[in-house]
Amino acid sequence: MPDLTPGQFQLVYNLLSLTVATMLAAGLFFYGSRAHVAHRYRPALLVSAIVVWIAGYHYFRIFQSWEGAFMLSGEGAYTASGAFFNDAYRYADWLITVPLLLVELVAVMALAKDEARSLLTKLVIAAVLMIAFGYPGEVSDNATTKWVWWAAAMVPYLYIYAALFSKMGPVIAANPGRVGSLLGLARNVLIVTWLFYPISFLAPVLGLGGATGEVFLQVGYTIADITAKAGFGVVIYMIAAARTEQEGHGATTEPLAA
Amino acid sequence: MPDLTPGQFQLVYNLLSLTVATMLAAGLFFYGSRAHVAHRYRPALLVSAIVVWIAGYHYFRIFQSWEGAFMLSGEGAYTASGAFFNDAYRYADWLITVPLLLVELVAVMALAKDEARSLLTKLVIAAVLMIAFGYPGEVSDNATTKWVWWAAAMVPYLYIYAALFSKMGPVIAANPGRVGSLLGLARNVLIVTWLFYPISFLAPVLGLGGATGEVFLQVGYTIADITAKAGFGVVIYMIAAARTEQEGHGATTEPLAA
Repeated sequence: MPDLTPGQFQLVYNLLSLTVATMLAAGLFFYGSRAHVAHRYRPALLVSAIVVWIAGYHYFRIFQSWEGAFMLSGEGAYTASGAFFNDAYRYADWLITVPLLLVELVAVMALAKDEARSLLTKLVIAAVLMIAFGYPGEVSDNATTKWVWWAAAMVPYLYIYAALFSKMGPVIAANPGRVGSLLGLARNVLIVTWLFYPISFLAPVLGLGGATGEVFLQVGYTIADITAKAGFGVVIYMIAAARTEQEGHGATTEPLAA
Repeated sequence: MPDLTPGQFQLVYNLLSLTVATMLAAGLFFYGSRAHVAHRYRPALLVSAIVVWIAGYHYFRIFQSWEGAFMLSGEGAYTASGAFFNDAYRYADWLITVPLLLVELVAVMALAKDEARSLLTKLVIAAVLMIAFGYPGEVSDNATTKWVWWAAAMVPYLYIYAALFSKMGPVIAANPGRVGSLLGLARNVLIVTWLFYPISFLAPVLGLGGATGEVFLQVGYTIADITAKAGFGVVIYMIAAARTEQEGHGATTEPLAA
């Protein structure tokens, strides 16, 4: 790890801690919110809760790994302690959470059951391949190896983009008003935040290294994860609440369970 | 950190621990209380729970950081251990919880949906700017820098005060009796406790330093946080309960499960 100024070290340190709090709290919100929407949309909120709790666990580990990887040297700089900073926690996290984020999205699209199942199977396989292909490139120090695995991971990545655009377009069109515009928002949050990952993957190859590069990567991944998981989950909640209201079976007519 | 007497060190230490217990317990109360109010007010109680749980997490971290930042020297005094006391946890906490406190308040004002959404958007943006502007001043040692960021943060701060006064006045007037007086109490709790933050921000500039200054700051921030989060949440709960009773659809007429 490169030497960091106290400001650089603490920015990442505080942001990682903030992310632990955000993910755990978002999970409690999604979990508790199930009782406030129609039964049909409760599984989507439960999956949203699971996603951010898994992320909260991994950010707790990343926080500890970051803290352990540096030590305050006499001259007011944080230098490498010799302990390993394990960025692979991110891949472990994505391998579980990225397929689940796609489950959330499909669950609030309210497709016919067969159509939903078939779409979800394709998306989940593509998501797992995308993360699995990225990993060998991430841990390699060789530029060619990184590029080869990057290209391999981009195939399922672009497949997911294409599938979401072709499948969500008609659903958005069929739901004018608040539900349709929220579905469009969910798709856009996913598509825009996901752009960060393939770009940052290439940061070492593109010469973005050293202290600034490391801080940029950690801050960028963290903001992307908060947006793509907690922020995305809030949009899923808003879709579920809007659909509940629209369908006229507000929680008032239903037995509750939380 | 300055040298502290055992009494000074332990006062802060015990108050921080008490706050962890208070915040976690208040969260369980608000979470469990949802089942006792009308459906419309349940999201407000869920958000109250999230706020104090996030604060409980941060007070746990502040407690550990305080403990690590001092060591008992032979002469019965607590001296700086050399480990960093991370007061930035407070800013991480406020960045998430202050917008959510405003969500709670607007949720029990029972405005029309469009009006609530528009008010909330403005308040949340102002709250995020207020905390973000405060941070660079807090971490700077320069008096001018502190004053500049203090002044910048005071603009959204005063905007929030003005918006709450102008929007809550008519709502309070339209709800004579218990609901109106509780809404007035919620507004006053928020406005009075929030006064502590910009004043204490300036403590180092105003010459309040050393052991007494540090203890005053920690005790003051902690009491302000308990009042503005757990205390404020109790008032929000009382408003939700009073409105439930007033609207005649008490929880007793509904199937419950929690």
